[in-house]
Amino acid sequence: MDGCEVPGATIGVVGGGQLGRMLAEAAAPLGVQLDILDPTPGCPAAPLAREHIVAPFDHRPAIERLAAGVDVLTYEIELADPAVLEAVSAATDTPVHPTPDTLRITQDKLEENRQFSAAGIGVPSFEAVESSAEVKAACESLGYPAMLKARTGGYDGRGNVRIASPDDVAPALAELEGPALVERLVPFEREISVIGVQGADRHDSYVAVENVHEAEILRETVVPARTDATIRERAREVANDVLSVLDGRGVFGIELFETPAGEILVNEIAPRPHNSGHWTIEGAVTSQFEQHVRAVLGRPIGDTTHRRGTITANILGDVEDPRPAHLEGVDSVLEAGDVKLHWYEKSEVRPLRKMGHLTLPEVPIDDRDAALAKARGLIDSLSFGPAPE
Amino acid sequence: MDGCEVPGATIGVVGGGQLGRMLAEAAAPLGVQLDILDPTPGCPAAPLAREHIVAPFDHRPAIERLAAGVDVLTYEIELADPAVLEAVSAATDTPVHPTPDTLRITQDKLEENRQFSAAGIGVPSFEAVESSAEVKAACESLGYPAMLKARTGGYDGRGNVRIASPDDVAPALAELEGPALVERLVPFEREISVIGVQGADRHDSYVAVENVHEAEILRETVVPARTDATIRERAREVANDVLSVLDGRGVFGIELFETPAGEILVNEIAPRPHNSGHWTIEGAVTSQFEQHVRAVLGRPIGDTTHRRGTITANILGDVEDPRPAHLEGVDSVLEAGDVKLHWYEKSEVRPLRKMGHLTLPEVPIDDRDAALAKARGLIDSLSFGPAPE
Repeated sequence: MDGCEVPGATIGVVGGGQLGRMLAEAAAPLGVQLDILDPTPGCPAAPLAREHIVAPFDHRPAIERLAAGVDVLTYEIELADPAVLEAVSAATDTPVHPTPDTLRITQDKLEENRQFSAAGIGVPSFEAVESSAEVKAACESLGYPAMLKARTGGYDGRGNVRIASPDDVAPALAELEGPALVERLVPFEREISVIGVQGADRHDSYVAVENVHEAEILRETVVPARTDATIRERAREVANDVLSVLDGRGVFGIELFETPAGEILVNEIAPRPHNSGHWTIEGAVTSQFEQHVRAVLGRPIGDTTHRRGTITANILGDVEDPRPAHLEGVDSVLEAGDVKLHWYEKSEVRPLRKMGHLTLPEVPIDDRDAALAKARGLIDSLSFGPAPE
Repeated sequence: MDGCEVPGATIGVVGGGQLGRMLAEAAAPLGVQLDILDPTPGCPAAPLAREHIVAPFDHRPAIERLAAGVDVLTYEIELADPAVLEAVSAATDTPVHPTPDTLRITQDKLEENRQFSAAGIGVPSFEAVESSAEVKAACESLGYPAMLKARTGGYDGRGNVRIASPDDVAPALAELEGPALVERLVPFEREISVIGVQGADRHDSYVAVENVHEAEILRETVVPARTDATIRERAREVANDVLSVLDGRGVFGIELFETPAGEILVNEIAPRPHNSGHWTIEGAVTSQFEQHVRAVLGRPIGDTTHRRGTITANILGDVEDPRPAHLEGVDSVLEAGDVKLHWYEKSEVRPLRKMGHLTLPEVPIDDRDAALAKARGLIDSLSFGPAPE
């Protein structure tokens, strides 16, 4: 553990998007530097990283080079390759957190469901399917409507197809490639999530939050979730159960469904800081990003207490075609006083691309509805104009 | 103003110490990048800056190069040279904030006192002196003990000599070089300070805080100052008066004395973010560093409201001789939960050098004494060990 001292340690991160950027922002005050590996020159984390290795996420020689310069490896993107990480870890004697096995499980929706089921953690009913006949049989047994899901590669709703009747089976299969599973379509009251932290000798989690999606993209997060305190507590218990199943240290984004009966089911797990945890930067004493830095280095994890209510709202690319990113209307956000801007410095805006986020950090618990409306108003005041001359 | 848009603007900073580092940390979420000029390779701000020009603070060609790449110039160290900044600004058409004139005034203790006196702002009684006879006469007229102060170059108590009797005059003069002034030695209840923000169209200030010095070095800051609310309000008024006198946008550290009679006198002004304002990173919605970024760019300044009580404590070099910096005992800080570490990444520790600071951001107003004791305990748990093999 000697090499992982704070201050002074270095972390190699596969992926250099906004999560890597905010990791670097959190690492700096601890005196921890990040090297990143990302195929995109000028990616969001690049300006804050010590070194940026420009290479594909699964490029073994490049990841060996990354490992050679740091104390520990981690990843901020599920496109990281568990087999390559495992091989590099063994070849260079560099720990990887969370473990490549955990990454492998969370990359495979079927395997994830099986592991959680086996551990007694609630997930939507599911069946593995390999043929059109099996899909039909699974839908009959689970009931329509059902969801056909790709085992791997799902992200922001991609890889999920709804099946309302037997007629939908053939087109649904045509949309997906590779192995799949069918899940019962869970009717839910709300989507909630919990950020969990697995440290060297204990784990902990933040308060359950509520995620507002539109077109399967996360728009806003309301902290705490607007549901019963007992439900929020139950969600944290489920999150802690999830942490017990997964191996390796770090932060996990744990997405959950709250059913009308008040049941908590696991939707999916990200073995990394998560969009629904950005509120922790201002809303908790220790942010999810600082926790990830501490955890992967094996240092003590920090306080997860939330200060009060918090709202975050994503700044999404509200454009029809890609173009150079030029955000307009920011003065309205700066003038709002109790709002924090987080801009990811992506040079190109694309339809629905996550470009940044806003946080309202000082929301009285009883004012969450009004604060959410205010956040939406501020998002609406922003737009992507033409690039300046 | 077109070039100063947020996100996207760039700032050139003369000086790359911890203040520049924390400026860069605050600039990143706004999508603002910093170039720095500092003679020390690997200075604290370097890892977070877009570019680091290695050159003396007054090196005109280097500052012209700095100016050529950015929208606006500022400085985080009083060693910046107002004449050079003025010349570069004119030659390159790059604004400098705060103005070089303001830097000139705050570099000259006599000129500062004169300006504030003329504006009706309270300062300790003072007299300009140019000879041993004038020093004696000033002490007689102001009363013993008095302070002989160098007009320029004073910092952390350097350049100030106490004169208790006529016998001290000759040795005091021998200690100082250059032009000087004599000030009445103000008996004070406590040293307080206010961080002021001068924006494009309005100014504002944070709550008055209390500074605990030892051997003339700032050890801790207690937020809010443990004095009457009316005194704190009066301190803010004085700070606002000070802002009205000084020209140019930015953040100012305004150090004040509270006398036993409840009078507020200006001690000295720093035309930049200030050690006694580090509490604003966690303790206010908008930190002094974010305010400085916003202000020098001419964008709207942010909210100065403090959340609740806050304590900061400096991590000083408790060593007898310079050596490579290797901080030990940090786990006790990480385990404390409600404490934030800020490490400046200085490679060498020197006696009393400012190496970092701790912040306790969630202190109930009535618990400031206990929190201060806790902060001191945490500082005592840190030490500079031998560098690892």
